[in-house]
Amino acid sequence: MTYTLVLLRHGESDWNAKNLFTGWVDVALTEKGRGEAVRGGELMRESGVLPDVVHTSLQRRAINTAALSLDAADRHWIPVKRSWRLNERHYGALQGKDKKQTLAEYGEEQFMLWRRSFDTPPPPLDDSDEWSQAGDPRYADLGDELPRTECLKDVIARFLPYWEAEIVPDLQSGKTVLVAAHGNSLRALVKHLDGISDEDIAGLNIPTGMPLVYRLDASMQPTVAGGEYLDPEAAAAAAAAVANQGR
Amino acid sequence: MTYTLVLLRHGESDWNAKNLFTGWVDVALTEKGRGEAVRGGELMRESGVLPDVVHTSLQRRAINTAALSLDAADRHWIPVKRSWRLNERHYGALQGKDKKQTLAEYGEEQFMLWRRSFDTPPPPLDDSDEWSQAGDPRYADLGDELPRTECLKDVIARFLPYWEAEIVPDLQSGKTVLVAAHGNSLRALVKHLDGISDEDIAGLNIPTGMPLVYRLDASMQPTVAGGEYLDPEAAAAAAAAVANQGR
Repeated sequence: MTYTLVLLRHGESDWNAKNLFTGWVDVALTEKGRGEAVRGGELMRESGVLPDVVHTSLQRRAINTAALSLDAADRHWIPVKRSWRLNERHYGALQGKDKKQTLAEYGEEQFMLWRRSFDTPPPPLDDSDEWSQAGDPRYADLGDELPRTECLKDVIARFLPYWEAEIVPDLQSGKTVLVAAHGNSLRALVKHLDGISDEDIAGLNIPTGMPLVYRLDASMQPTVAGGEYLDPEAAAAAAAAVANQGR
Repeated sequence: MTYTLVLLRHGESDWNAKNLFTGWVDVALTEKGRGEAVRGGELMRESGVLPDVVHTSLQRRAINTAALSLDAADRHWIPVKRSWRLNERHYGALQGKDKKQTLAEYGEEQFMLWRRSFDTPPPPLDDSDEWSQAGDPRYADLGDELPRTECLKDVIARFLPYWEAEIVPDLQSGKTVLVAAHGNSLRALVKHLDGISDEDIAGLNIPTGMPLVYRLDASMQPTVAGGEYLDPEAAAAAAAAVANQGR
């Protein structure tokens, strides 16, 4: 008896396409991103990996990816649970900034530290900034917990309580669980599942719109390290492309 | 202090456009229907009627109407609850049949009896019929409760327990509640709210994609009978068009 977990990173967003740091800014999917989501759902349907429940972030690009993929998989009717704890990493003062420009301005070392360091967050985003989420009604209940910047370590710290409290119980009840989320919230989960070190997680990239299936044993350990993509060749090509972002 | 309930009938579906009896058949929205849903969401945003929670049926046309309208209202992130009890009326053996052809074959009297009689359901749909929902995984838990045909009275009988158990508590907690559903499940609710007689409900039509707002008092009675459309002129024109379907 194994438990089935499906991870799906949202398809291309407006700001992926424009090469801007997005974080908690609530941008939409591009037409390409919508197509990726639909293709991800078709892969689920074709392979018979059919979610019984979906967990999403509070961000449009993950919410719409979940909806489009589940519609394509004929599973649009399953229960939906949402939480800010699945949100993308908050990119602090980098939100809204051009990646190439940031690389040119701060240099390779600082750029990669902000993008990939485990425990160094970018400078915090000011509440008065146009890309701040202070005052956004969806986060009104967070109070002081509302992040102004995050490193991956921070994402893990706010994601894992949700994993334990909400997702694991769904898995343990025998449900196939879809988590439709973001590059960094999914990296946080994969790091936890596969026991990846703080150093090695920097090199791990998750492609957009590619369902990644983990079969978990009773202690929620992967039976196959790294999981299995429903379309492994496309996933390998896409992961290589993500690694070169900002170049 | 009043409670705010927003009713939204799904936009035009493939089978609305083809003039077929749909019922529980899970058809998609047309491009026009998707546009209606978006427009409904824009009306909510413009008027400041912003849902805090949404209840939908298990059917694609209502689920997608909810998603598209909430996205347009910038409320895509609110909690979602779904139930078969919000589904369209099951049209029995008429599911999949052409409305005009049915009118020609059975005559005006029988046609209107099936369409509008309060307590006369069409003949039941056989489980082996191509348009049957027997075996559909989303209804697996229903067992003997799975309808094979329904009249409006039957819809009321399965809708009201959900209203009392799930929707009223959300309203009482002060949330603005969106119910994204179907012509007949919404007629069932409106009949209950406005105390419309079994005879008079036959004449009541709810237009597609037009948010209908009820302000309810502490005993869940409408403060304005019939509620108020966010766009009253468009709603009156659309309701007249619905009344002429099948002609």
